[in-house]
Amino acid sequence: MKLYSYFRSSASYRVRIALALKGLPYEYAAVHLVKGGGQQLSSVYRSVNPDSLVPTLEDGPHVLTQSLAIVEYLNELHPEPPLLPSDAVDRAYVRSVALQVACEIHPVNNLRVLQYLKNSLGVTEEQKTEWYRHWVDVGFGALESRLEDERRVGEFVCGGTPTLADICLVPQVWNARRFNIPLDDYPTVVCLADNAMKLEAFKMAQPANQPDAE
Amino acid sequence: MKLYSYFRSSASYRVRIALALKGLPYEYAAVHLVKGGGQQLSSVYRSVNPDSLVPTLEDGPHVLTQSLAIVEYLNELHPEPPLLPSDAVDRAYVRSVALQVACEIHPVNNLRVLQYLKNSLGVTEEQKTEWYRHWVDVGFGALESRLEDERRVGEFVCGGTPTLADICLVPQVWNARRFNIPLDDYPTVVCLADNAMKLEAFKMAQPANQPDAE
Repeated sequence: MKLYSYFRSSASYRVRIALALKGLPYEYAAVHLVKGGGQQLSSVYRSVNPDSLVPTLEDGPHVLTQSLAIVEYLNELHPEPPLLPSDAVDRAYVRSVALQVACEIHPVNNLRVLQYLKNSLGVTEEQKTEWYRHWVDVGFGALESRLEDERRVGEFVCGGTPTLADICLVPQVWNARRFNIPLDDYPTVVCLADNAMKLEAFKMAQPANQPDAE
Repeated sequence: MKLYSYFRSSASYRVRIALALKGLPYEYAAVHLVKGGGQQLSSVYRSVNPDSLVPTLEDGPHVLTQSLAIVEYLNELHPEPPLLPSDAVDRAYVRSVALQVACEIHPVNNLRVLQYLKNSLGVTEEQKTEWYRHWVDVGFGALESRLEDERRVGEFVCGGTPTLADICLVPQVWNARRFNIPLDDYPTVVCLADNAMKLEAFKMAQPANQPDAE
C-alpha cells in the first residue's frame, strides 16, 4: 500500500494511526500542502486524486480517498484489532464521535478555509486565530458535555480499546495544541486523547515521526 | 422512532431519505434552527442532544446523532434495501463520495458558519454569497471530475440503486439551487441528483414535504 500524506494533515494522521494499529506496512508519499503553493494542486497529484486533498491510499489497483472511508475499508479488510465495536448502537456512538470531529471541527479549520479567510476576506491574523479557537471551542465543548457523562467512556472513547473515535480525536487535540488553544475546559476530551497518545501506534503516526516532518 | 429535524437542514434531509428508502415510520419532531435564536440551543433540545445540532434519532432508549452514523445504523439494523454496496472497495467509494459532501462542502456552508461570518467577521451579504458559492464550486468541481469518468456511475452514484452517496448528494444540490448557485459546470453531479429525486422516497423526504415546511 502507498499513502499520500502530509505530516501535519489531521486526515492523513487518522489513516496513519489506523494503519499502525492494524500493523500494516506502507510506502509513504509526501505531499506538501504549503510548499510551492501546495503540491496537492499539482497535475501529478490530481491525476491520483482530483479532489486535491490528502490522504489518498493506493491499495494495489484501488485508489481510496476520504480518511473515514479509508479507515472503514482497512477495518473491513483487516478486522484485527477491530476499530469499531461489535454492537450496532455502540458503533453508531463511535462513528458519531468521529463525525463530530470530522464534520463539525476539522473542515471549518482546514488549511484552505484559513487561507480563504486571509486571502479573500482579508481578515487579520487575530481574527483568524479567533475563528480557529471559536470552532474548536464549539466542537470540543459539545464533545465534552457528551463524553463527561457517557457510560461507554473508559480508557478510550468506547471502553478499553481504541476505535475510530480516538483515531479522529487525537489529531484534533494535537492540532489544537499546535495552535495554542487553551483546553482546560475539556478535561475528558484531553484525557482520552492523552490515553491514546500513549499507545505505540499513535506515537508512530504522529506528525513529528513522519519522513516529511519539519 | 422519533426524528428531531429541521425541514431545511441537509443533515436531517439525509436521514429522512434513509428512513423513507427503508420504509420505516417515525414521529417528526420539528426543531426550528432560526426562530427564537434557534430552538436547537434551547435547554429542552440540549437535554436530548448536547451538540445542539439536528438531526437526532431516538430509537427506543437509544439517542443517535450525526446523520452519517444514523444512516449506517439504520442500514445495519434494517438491511433492505441496502444503502451500501456489498463489495468493500465499492463501499469505500460510496462512503468517500458521501464524505466529500459531508466533510468538504456542507460544514463550511452550515448555518452557524454563515452566521459567524456575518455577525463576528462583519462580512457583506455579497461576500457571504461568494463564500457559499466558492465552497460549492470547490466541492462540486472535485466531485464532477471524479464522477464524470467513474465506471461505477450508473443511474445513481454507484450503479442502479441509490446509496449513502446519493443520500448526501441530493440535499447538497437542493441547497445549492436554493441559493441560486449556477450548476452548469457539474452536469454529472446534477444528473445523478435529479435521477435520485425522481424516486418516491427522495420526494417524501424533501424539505417542502415536511410538517415544518414554510
